[in-house]
Amino acid sequence: MKIKRWTDVPAQPAEGIEGVTVRWVIAEGDGAPHFAMRVFDVQPGAATPYHNHWWEHEVYVLDGEGVAVQEGGETPISAGSVILVEGDETHCFRNTGQDVLRFICLIPFKWLEGLAEKHANA
Amino acid sequence: MKIKRWTDVPAQPAEGIEGVTVRWVIAEGDGAPHFAMRVFDVQPGAATPYHNHWWEHEVYVLDGEGVAVQEGGETPISAGSVILVEGDETHCFRNTGQDVLRFICLIPFKWLEGLAEKHANA
Repeated sequence: MKIKRWTDVPAQPAEGIEGVTVRWVIAEGDGAPHFAMRVFDVQPGAATPYHNHWWEHEVYVLDGEGVAVQEGGETPISAGSVILVEGDETHCFRNTGQDVLRFICLIPFKWLEGLAEKHANA
Repeated sequence: MKIKRWTDVPAQPAEGIEGVTVRWVIAEGDGAPHFAMRVFDVQPGAATPYHNHWWEHEVYVLDGEGVAVQEGGETPISAGSVILVEGDETHCFRNTGQDVLRFICLIPFKWLEGLAEKHANA
């Protein structure tokens, strides 16, 4: 068992985006076999990149107010919001509030790429 | 993208344990391909089962105070604690506070059983 506080892990710039940091609180180096847990801080007015990728996100919002952006529009999110971003969906999260927007975001490890489709078609 | 609030999902008794409920906020039926997100509420004095299983837990504590129990002893946890319970580790979470102990707990789906070991040995 590995036990830490989320603040034990240093915040890093997230993909070079100003006003967004990430902490990899559970990563492959911790012995996690399938998926990673990260904690993002998005400062007021900032947003994560509007992009897509094969892997999904499972998100739980801890603090703050913002919007989840997808091709169809924007949806308000705040503490207690739960978001599933499916693989290949274009998305971002933007802070529309006065305080930090903080959320947990979990992603599968790269070795899982393509295995879920294979399993579904087996 | 699926967006909800954690309270949108009904709380169910967790494994028949008195004082413990679970909400499957992201499950296979939501289209999640690899892992599920659940939110547990453990009432004061109650605990999750002391058991083990092949799958890991990735836990983030939202509210309250308790202990993570393993064979080597107990470790205090509270809001902001992050816990990785590795596969086959015997564990439970007990509420030692006066208010609800609430945490997020993510687990891989059953179809992943054994694949991480195969991948590591490939």
